[in-house]
Amino acid sequence: MDLDAVVVLMDNLWVALGAILVFFMLGGFILLEAGSTRMKNAGHIAGKTIFTAGIGTLVFWAVGYGFIYGEGNPFIGLSSFFYGDFSAADGGLTPAVDFSFQVMFALVALTIAFGGFAERAKLSVYVIFAVLFSAFIYPVVAHWIWGGGWLAEHGKQDFAGSTVVHLTGAMAALAATIILKPRIGKYNKDGSSNNLLGHNQVYTALGVLILWVGWFGFNGASTFGVADGFLGFVILNTQLAAGAGAVAAMFTVWAVTGKADVPTTLNGALAGLVAITASCGFVEPWAAVIIGAIGGIMVVFSMKLFEKLKIDDPIAALSVHGTVGVWGTLSNGLFAVPALSVDIEWGLPGLFYGGGFEQLGVQALGVVASGAYAFVVSFIILKVLDMTIGLRVSEEEEIMGLDISEHGSYGYPEHMEQEAKLTTAATTEDK
Amino acid sequence: MDLDAVVVLMDNLWVALGAILVFFMLGGFILLEAGSTRMKNAGHIAGKTIFTAGIGTLVFWAVGYGFIYGEGNPFIGLSSFFYGDFSAADGGLTPAVDFSFQVMFALVALTIAFGGFAERAKLSVYVIFAVLFSAFIYPVVAHWIWGGGWLAEHGKQDFAGSTVVHLTGAMAALAATIILKPRIGKYNKDGSSNNLLGHNQVYTALGVLILWVGWFGFNGASTFGVADGFLGFVILNTQLAAGAGAVAAMFTVWAVTGKADVPTTLNGALAGLVAITASCGFVEPWAAVIIGAIGGIMVVFSMKLFEKLKIDDPIAALSVHGTVGVWGTLSNGLFAVPALSVDIEWGLPGLFYGGGFEQLGVQALGVVASGAYAFVVSFIILKVLDMTIGLRVSEEEEIMGLDISEHGSYGYPEHMEQEAKLTTAATTEDK
Amino acid sequence: MDLDAVVVLMDNLWVALGAILVFFMLGGFILLEAGSTRMKNAGHIAGKTIFTAGIGTLVFWAVGYGFIYGEGNPFIGLSSFFYGDFSAADGGLTPAVDFSFQVMFALVALTIAFGGFAERAKLSVYVIFAVLFSAFIYPVVAHWIWGGGWLAEHGKQDFAGSTVVHLTGAMAALAATIILKPRIGKYNKDGSSNNLLGHNQVYTALGVLILWVGWFGFNGASTFGVADGFLGFVILNTQLAAGAGAVAAMFTVWAVTGKADVPTTLNGALAGLVAITASCGFVEPWAAVIIGAIGGIMVVFSMKLFEKLKIDDPIAALSVHGTVGVWGTLSNGLFAVPALSVDIEWGLPGLFYGGGFEQLGVQALGVVASGAYAFVVSFIILKVLDMTIGLRVSEEEEIMGLDISEHGSYGYPEHMEQEAKLTTAATTEDK
Repeated sequence: MDLDAVVVLMDNLWVALGAILVFFMLGGFILLEAGSTRMKNAGHIAGKTIFTAGIGTLVFWAVGYGFIYGEGNPFIGLSSFFYGDFSAADGGLTPAVDFSFQVMFALVALTIAFGGFAERAKLSVYVIFAVLFSAFIYPVVAHWIWGGGWLAEHGKQDFAGSTVVHLTGAMAALAATIILKPRIGKYNKDGSSNNLLGHNQVYTALGVLILWVGWFGFNGASTFGVADGFLGFVILNTQLAAGAGAVAAMFTVWAVTGKADVPTTLNGALAGLVAITASCGFVEPWAAVIIGAIGGIMVVFSMKLFEKLKIDDPIAALSVHGTVGVWGTLSNGLFAVPALSVDIEWGLPGLFYGGGFEQLGVQALGVVASGAYAFVVSFIILKVLDMTIGLRVSEEEEIMGLDISEHGSYGYPEHMEQEAKLTTAATTEDK
Repeated sequence: MDLDAVVVLMDNLWVALGAILVFFMLGGFILLEAGSTRMKNAGHIAGKTIFTAGIGTLVFWAVGYGFIYGEGNPFIGLSSFFYGDFSAADGGLTPAVDFSFQVMFALVALTIAFGGFAERAKLSVYVIFAVLFSAFIYPVVAHWIWGGGWLAEHGKQDFAGSTVVHLTGAMAALAATIILKPRIGKYNKDGSSNNLLGHNQVYTALGVLILWVGWFGFNGASTFGVADGFLGFVILNTQLAAGAGAVAAMFTVWAVTGKADVPTTLNGALAGLVAITASCGFVEPWAAVIIGAIGGIMVVFSMKLFEKLKIDDPIAALSVHGTVGVWGTLSNGLFAVPALSVDIEWGLPGLFYGGGFEQLGVQALGVVASGAYAFVVSFIILKVLDMTIGLRVSEEEEIMGLDISEHGSYGYPEHMEQEAKLTTAATTEDK
Repeated sequence: MDLDAVVVLMDNLWVALGAILVFFMLGGFILLEAGSTRMKNAGHIAGKTIFTAGIGTLVFWAVGYGFIYGEGNPFIGLSSFFYGDFSAADGGLTPAVDFSFQVMFALVALTIAFGGFAERAKLSVYVIFAVLFSAFIYPVVAHWIWGGGWLAEHGKQDFAGSTVVHLTGAMAALAATIILKPRIGKYNKDGSSNNLLGHNQVYTALGVLILWVGWFGFNGASTFGVADGFLGFVILNTQLAAGAGAVAAMFTVWAVTGKADVPTTLNGALAGLVAITASCGFVEPWAAVIIGAIGGIMVVFSMKLFEKLKIDDPIAALSVHGTVGVWGTLSNGLFAVPALSVDIEWGLPGLFYGGGFEQLGVQALGVVASGAYAFVVSFIILKVLDMTIGLRVSEEEEIMGLDISEHGSYGYPEHMEQEAKLTTAATTEDK
């Protein structure tokens, strides 16, 4: 064994830890999604995160990894299925470490996509879409940008997945939201909307904190190693952008509405994280602050815009991962510093560093192509499902909640019993 | 310092991180147990996890570590008490790192055991049993298999503790469950049973997710080092088995009962994790999928079986850690591949790899001997406690809940106040 | 690259992981604080942790790091603002890794300080005090002890921050508590006090568990590297002290009050952690057990004392971080072993190891000077705020809760709706 081999062991260790941190993000999503929705759907929304993670894992093992990294063509990979036929991984990572890290990104993208299904989609739809998204949507975009596909050939930069993970997930969520239509009670006949408040802001806050923690692995281990201690720089940029996003969102919503709305502030932190994801390894710390803060401001207005467009997005997935995912990808074309790290020789400097519009153009092309692919394929799949088995539960089921209708028991049985007692009491009094 | 010494530093780092991850599993258990039980016992069940972890830590420091790894005989170790008299640890781990990793496994086993006590045991029983289990039950089995005891001499394989941790904990839980008898309201006079629903499935789901995260340390750091990046392979197998377990359990319970019950699905993920624990370093990924899936299917039927046998197991500890712990241990005798890792030269190939029935037989011997020891000693201890101080709270205390009876305040005081108001209102109306 | 450079990479990896673990502690505080307070303030208290972390991060980036570690004088540093002008970091850590680790400590201190504001301070006060504390209070004390300031010159030992983080935060909390005065309903006219119970002990227990997990990074990565595997020793001491604190607190409160109060037991674990923070790298394991146990006993009586003094401290921040922070700092002057680690050549042995009273005296000087500075400056800032914008919300706002008054929506809207229905029902009946 020589020195380089020892460093490779350390690279493997760090990326394996990164995989663990990224998987932990699913815990953040459980809390974020459950906290942002109503009690009658809480068991469903938390439980589906676990079993769709299971489905996503198995599909990624079967075909997903191969579609991304297998030998193939600029559109798709076509080998390395079922954890077999691996060519030596980049940078000396063992195939297992590389696979473990990659599968977690696929699960995060899938979980983001399901944000658009919240509180009204059938359980069977989750099962089927988890398979199809993990096989045919996420891996294709990932192949284009990370697997040596046609966008990689154009020099598309996406350090840790603003496009690959966040935008792809959000575009699938958008397709779902459009086809599913708004939840019962979201919009009134006169076109005005109601705030169907999430049931637990402690969950939401803790969820965001856990996502933030996991993001250090998401971004930091996208260095694929420990060279130069560069991972610390990525973590620093991530921290600054997240903090700036939270602060910017809070002051924005406070100024605009008069109240420092908690869920919006929390989404600001996530927006900062999504925004810096593409560029955390390419920009200077002051730029990270700006990128994060702009993300935090954007998310406030994006949420309002979607609400006006009558696109009902309970978890704000479209704004946080979609709108801000686009901003994150483009920001890189503005702020990317040449040769920040000796190990990353990918793409060009941004507009503000004399790189001209070329990198910005490549980034925009990446957004449009990836976003369009994810949206169109998701839309077709979901439309077919809608016309065959139906996407949405019945009105009656939606009102009683998915916990009882899809899974047979409430997530909060004691609370629901109290609710029933109260309703009975009220009815008795009326008589 | 030479190259090997640097690798040893890295081994220490990884195992120390593993200790942290395993300790984090206790957070998963807090949520799993609290979520699976009722609101009136939630503060108690969450709080007892912390103080029994404290007791377990002190006892393990005093005698537990020494009983496992001290110089002694094939039955028990007899030195290295109070963190003293350490012989050089295997593989160059420092004594402190090794101790820190091992103590966390003891705490997990203890927490599993307490699953069988839920919602009806006295607080004093937790205190006493925590001492005795951590001193005389867990360390003995661990010595036999991991401490160079008689089962190790037979070549018993248990990579990360399907037998040592999960089966041992579950056997103690079984003894407790039998002596304590079912909770009030669990069974009707006609022999039929009621589902005493846990109060919060979001907790349960997040608990499972945290356990899954921690399990990467539980299994992954049981490599005791970073050699060959083998830890990545263990993490990969762990991920595949957990995912397969969740998916298999969900489809099984859906097919059998018509509803995709959330808690059962979640137990499927845990079953996948328990199942792969013995063999995560010995089997191929496709086998991990099968082992996990079978674990997920088994847990569904095992839960139904214990329910029919009138063994009331609120957290499903017997099925998840017991039944599936046995399966995990045996599966290794079927699927173990020779020389998967150059560093592990322990035991024989499984039945399916030409190893014949020998390794399977050793595994079965390990299950029977370890399970019998843990069950019998636990049973005797608990029976003596039952005859002296009594294991179970009074009927009145059980109905009011352990939060108030054992600790003097409710875990959810505001909810309980509402409940009281509702009860009063109902009573008033009746008049 | 040579061997030393490889070890430096590993040092950077460990400290970066430490930063992630310390940041995760904020998740523990979210749960601890939310669980220890009432439902009507839960969204506020959870959400403020996120945005004040954002503010703290930006301020630390702008000036905080520079005030601690910049070139300057014994009182304050005066360079390295805005992540610029870094001199080479100690021990070969990259500036980014060092910054990332340090910023998390500042955020923990800030969060501790806000414990004293709970359930009655205005949102705007949080914003302003987050800026001022992160700029002018924490960094000054940190400079004195960790940044080469005047206390460091006297040989003050504070391995991971009993004084710098915990005592500083607690002194700010004390100033806030005094000026804000007790919450409505805490004290009766006859001087007796009421227990305003926290709403969720599962949160509290999980919060403590998460803090415990994060503390392994807090203490363990304060080694600033992996040399000698010494981090394992620190982790071991941390585990023993935390366990001893929980057990000691439980038995103490059980003996004194007749009930094993859950929140007090949980605070005992935290007390053990705070106590060992100063000395985790300087004392033997048996001493860690004693230090932790004494911390656990002290916290029980300290909580009772503050209650009697009519200082209303909802999260017990004053007792856990203040009283026990003092004990932790002093304990080091008693138990510190000379040359425990070859890498730490700081300070003198404790009283019990023939070091005489000198180190104990330096420790006491550090406590008095740091505590006085943090208290006085916090008091002046908060008094000025109180006289200008006012610290405390109106009586009406406090009664309705900060969720709705400061943020415009309840953290638990469905629960609050039930509460309203119940109140209406009761009113109707009265008529």
